[in-house]
Amino acid sequence: MGLLSDIRSPEDVRALTPGQMPELAEEIRRFLVGSVSRTGGHLGPNLGVVELTIAMHRVFESPKDTFVFDTGHQSYVHKLLTGRQDFSALRKRGGLSGYPSRAESEHDVVENSHASTALSWADGIAKANVVRGRDDRHVVAVIGDGALTGGMAWEALNNIAEGHDRRLVIVVNDNGRSYSPTIGGLANHLDTLRTTQGYEAFLDWGKRALFRSGPPGRFAHRWLHGLKKGLKDVVAPQGMFEDLGLKYVGPVDGHDVAALEHALSRAKSYGAPVIVHAITEKGRGYTPAEQDVADRFHAVGVIHPETGLPVAPSRFGWTSVFADEIVAIGRRRPDVVAITAAMLHPVGLAPFAEEFPERTFDVGIAEQHAATSAAGMAFAGLHPVVAVYATFLNRAFDQVLMDVALHRAGVTFVLDRAGITGEDGASHNGMWDMAMLRIVPGLRLAAPRDEATLRAALRTAVDVDDAPTVVRYPKGALVSGIPAVEELDGVDVIARHTGKKSDGGARRVLVVGVGSMATTALETGEALAAHGVDVTVASPTWVLPVPAALVKLAGEHDLVVTVEDGVVDGGVGSMIAQRAGEQGILTPQVHVGLPVEFLDHASIDHIRTTRRMTAADATRDALAALALL
Amino acid sequence: MGLLSDIRSPEDVRALTPGQMPELAEEIRRFLVGSVSRTGGHLGPNLGVVELTIAMHRVFESPKDTFVFDTGHQSYVHKLLTGRQDFSALRKRGGLSGYPSRAESEHDVVENSHASTALSWADGIAKANVVRGRDDRHVVAVIGDGALTGGMAWEALNNIAEGHDRRLVIVVNDNGRSYSPTIGGLANHLDTLRTTQGYEAFLDWGKRALFRSGPPGRFAHRWLHGLKKGLKDVVAPQGMFEDLGLKYVGPVDGHDVAALEHALSRAKSYGAPVIVHAITEKGRGYTPAEQDVADRFHAVGVIHPETGLPVAPSRFGWTSVFADEIVAIGRRRPDVVAITAAMLHPVGLAPFAEEFPERTFDVGIAEQHAATSAAGMAFAGLHPVVAVYATFLNRAFDQVLMDVALHRAGVTFVLDRAGITGEDGASHNGMWDMAMLRIVPGLRLAAPRDEATLRAALRTAVDVDDAPTVVRYPKGALVSGIPAVEELDGVDVIARHTGKKSDGGARRVLVVGVGSMATTALETGEALAAHGVDVTVASPTWVLPVPAALVKLAGEHDLVVTVEDGVVDGGVGSMIAQRAGEQGILTPQVHVGLPVEFLDHASIDHIRTTRRMTAADATRDALAALALL
Repeated sequence: MGLLSDIRSPEDVRALTPGQMPELAEEIRRFLVGSVSRTGGHLGPNLGVVELTIAMHRVFESPKDTFVFDTGHQSYVHKLLTGRQDFSALRKRGGLSGYPSRAESEHDVVENSHASTALSWADGIAKANVVRGRDDRHVVAVIGDGALTGGMAWEALNNIAEGHDRRLVIVVNDNGRSYSPTIGGLANHLDTLRTTQGYEAFLDWGKRALFRSGPPGRFAHRWLHGLKKGLKDVVAPQGMFEDLGLKYVGPVDGHDVAALEHALSRAKSYGAPVIVHAITEKGRGYTPAEQDVADRFHAVGVIHPETGLPVAPSRFGWTSVFADEIVAIGRRRPDVVAITAAMLHPVGLAPFAEEFPERTFDVGIAEQHAATSAAGMAFAGLHPVVAVYATFLNRAFDQVLMDVALHRAGVTFVLDRAGITGEDGASHNGMWDMAMLRIVPGLRLAAPRDEATLRAALRTAVDVDDAPTVVRYPKGALVSGIPAVEELDGVDVIARHTGKKSDGGARRVLVVGVGSMATTALETGEALAAHGVDVTVASPTWVLPVPAALVKLAGEHDLVVTVEDGVVDGGVGSMIAQRAGEQGILTPQVHVGLPVEFLDHASIDHIRTTRRMTAADATRDALAALALL
Repeated sequence: MGLLSDIRSPEDVRALTPGQMPELAEEIRRFLVGSVSRTGGHLGPNLGVVELTIAMHRVFESPKDTFVFDTGHQSYVHKLLTGRQDFSALRKRGGLSGYPSRAESEHDVVENSHASTALSWADGIAKANVVRGRDDRHVVAVIGDGALTGGMAWEALNNIAEGHDRRLVIVVNDNGRSYSPTIGGLANHLDTLRTTQGYEAFLDWGKRALFRSGPPGRFAHRWLHGLKKGLKDVVAPQGMFEDLGLKYVGPVDGHDVAALEHALSRAKSYGAPVIVHAITEKGRGYTPAEQDVADRFHAVGVIHPETGLPVAPSRFGWTSVFADEIVAIGRRRPDVVAITAAMLHPVGLAPFAEEFPERTFDVGIAEQHAATSAAGMAFAGLHPVVAVYATFLNRAFDQVLMDVALHRAGVTFVLDRAGITGEDGASHNGMWDMAMLRIVPGLRLAAPRDEATLRAALRTAVDVDDAPTVVRYPKGALVSGIPAVEELDGVDVIARHTGKKSDGGARRVLVVGVGSMATTALETGEALAAHGVDVTVASPTWVLPVPAALVKLAGEHDLVVTVEDGVVDGGVGSMIAQRAGEQGILTPQVHVGLPVEFLDHASIDHIRTTRRMTAADATRDALAALALL
């Protein structure tokens, strides 16, 4: 590596000559391909912003000027140019984060990888710069076309358009689609149609913008060529952003450093908010001729449109079972429709969409709209199934509460990637759902433990027509089926142990495993039994509201141990304790789960171990509690 | 009353002749003024939509066609035309709701009065109509110009623009401002500037639209005349909605039934989504000549822009103290800035804005942006104070969690109208905040009990620079100061009683009053003491995280009784129990608070009584629990 390895900071980038840019870009691409294909990570999105990131660092001066990357998965090039070139442990504990990280560098600002937030961050920073009289500082926000479908982006644009005294540059990183182009086949075609339909308006604007600036160039032509929808309204001379009163520069070829530098310099000189519209290609740098490299790119798999995470649905057993069962339900129930927030593939709705295209709705990256439009559909006689990652339902809490629950709408929310997700970092863990949803009146929540209980929970959920239902399950592989040895009014008992030392006076412990934590609960039960304790291991598929049978069970034991993969404060354990307490059942309880804190990127096992969530932890805590009794 | 009293259903409206419309409108106005001036309620917004609502019922056929009113405070005329003319107990228990209510009428659909949701509801209903083959049904959504600043509206517009097969009419009820024109003075001028700045872009579009359609008419002229900002970009021929690909009809005089019927009929005939832009006047029907009537209109006071509720800041002691203290803080701390989501007056920020206009930011009806832009400001060295109604913070849960808390941003949220709000109906109660915020890592929450603790809590809150802080207080008058009789590591003891029958062996009860429930806690303590119980009454201003001293106190008593005005599930009581349990402190607890259910409109006292939250309830529950020990 000639140029890249000598770059220690953005000043080194600025010291290079314009003529060296193609070489630097080529080196970065080679580095990314070589490194990310070994570690995994976001290859496509970063290959798309190589020239853009170089140009940003040549025109602006980070960290005096603030760079904000929306979702943050496209910040690898930024890391390389700001002194971070050891990618060997990318996304592993101790290695570089896959997202910007303040702990890593003063050049990083926003760690939240939920989409559509960058413009609000930028507006706040720009406002503060004005208040503090820091006239020499610029804020540069990079946001993808897909993220512009999120409501927050609109709220921010409204505010930014007002800030005539703010030095704020919005770079729209426009690759015209949120999905990787590598999926192929009918599913891909459907996905592309659906994924783009949410922001067709924006694409239309792009088309008009392209025409306005003269004959489309090479990239513009390719981009246009790739559009699936017919051209219309092309004669309109005004773009949406200009209508909002924002200055506009572009479109500019997002792979021409000189053109980008020119556009960004113009934008910088305005001293007021301005949009720079860059047309980029995700995965830029691979031609069909580079066949082996293309394969390695393929291996990264489907790109998650909200986060850019690689996802491979076939790896995730839970998602596959949902994908299969929802199709079966759809065949039986013509009123069941599916809603996704730009995540058709990752949440497993592609088969449903293929069979029932007219009953599948991709609303864009718009969880709020997903929830409220679902309430509208339920009012009009349908049963919508809204499938999202657990962490993203947090964005629609008010809509779940006030539109769905208040109106007793029969809407089913399917939460994928609930619990600990591990290497994707703090904002991806689906650990808040149960504690948050417990305060929604009438809501029923299922945490199935295996394939059979997942299928059953889904079937039950879509039969509820007067309240929100939620089915949540984790990322990762399914365990083998765990049969019930006994069924008590909706609560499965999955093991009973008589302690070895039992003489009729042994202590009785109830271990409750929430969802996939049933396995940990079983192990805990066995370990406790080995200490001479009588144990009942329960697995309630429906945990909200707390089943009466579970409260009754609690009263029949000397200690209750709950094991869950959500935050322990306000979690299922605390709910059982509260319901029991109201009935005068004062059995002591030990609640095993996640503390209320953010989790750095690390493996799921590492997180479970360090947060004391293993069977050994639960056993030790239970024995300590028994010793106190 | 000639025409109005004979109207039993919309068919009766359609049976009238066009020539009778002015008379009907006049009767409705007379009715509204007479009735609402007696009961209180939303006068201005409803006077603004008299002709619009009449025209809607003449062109469309509710309930076959679905009417959705955004925020719902402008549905009085709709009620009058759909068989509900007894307004004598408006907003009282047993009387008509101030919002649409499904229990009242099949013509009502959306009860959630949080802003910006109507377009999502309409999109969902229209999609369902297509799926179900109901080609003859239309959906009509009425949304104000202010509500269009909310992100949900953008998400919905994106989706609606795609639905070429959907029969959906969006009526933009554009009065050019969210506040009542009756405030007057410098504050009003400031407010208008700030309130409108969030959607200046929209106003600009309106201006262009007006010019496009020819010379502005009487209303258009008056509207234009009222605009505070200079005209610019007027030569641009395209409006934002048309840019989005939505058909557009208008602008139309919102007080001319014939013109409105013509516009709505055109819109109906399209068979595709269309915007009808109606220019209305809030409070239409009062001229300066009608002086006494104008006074009665004045009495309704400032109109809450998100809900249309009348608010009179001087009536609310808590808000006034905040308004005063935040100015004092602002004088001392140049880094403190204030953010409001279109509620400058209702939350008490007007004095701050008057003294520090450059440090006050009205972001529009955009709570998500308020939270995230605050995180940006904190990053750039300011300390933002975001003042919102408690119920509206639910709309920014993800942003509080992922933008503010994850980034350890020093942002203070001030939650007004926390707890029970009463007559405003289910979606206004601020009862979810504590249970929701307890799962936000690092967050500190104060629930002060009186003026002194509110002032102290605010001063403490703005001194925290590495975590979100929250100060929450209820609607209504402040009680007199409640001094601490003892201070234990941050927990105030506000009373100690030795039970009359105490012989040294009396039972010891700890009563914990959260925030303004300190009064109920004091009464409970006295009542328990009268039953011979030793009582400690504690009032912890900071309840999140649970103070260690409070947990210790719990361990020194035989029973803990908590009294709070939020949902009891996952509330402060359950937090204290959980922390105590973790330390092996198994003191039984009784948690008094709101059940997890929606509250119909009724007085605050009625709700407290029926939900068993009075001192008598707490006392009875405590004695029952003691009997069990």
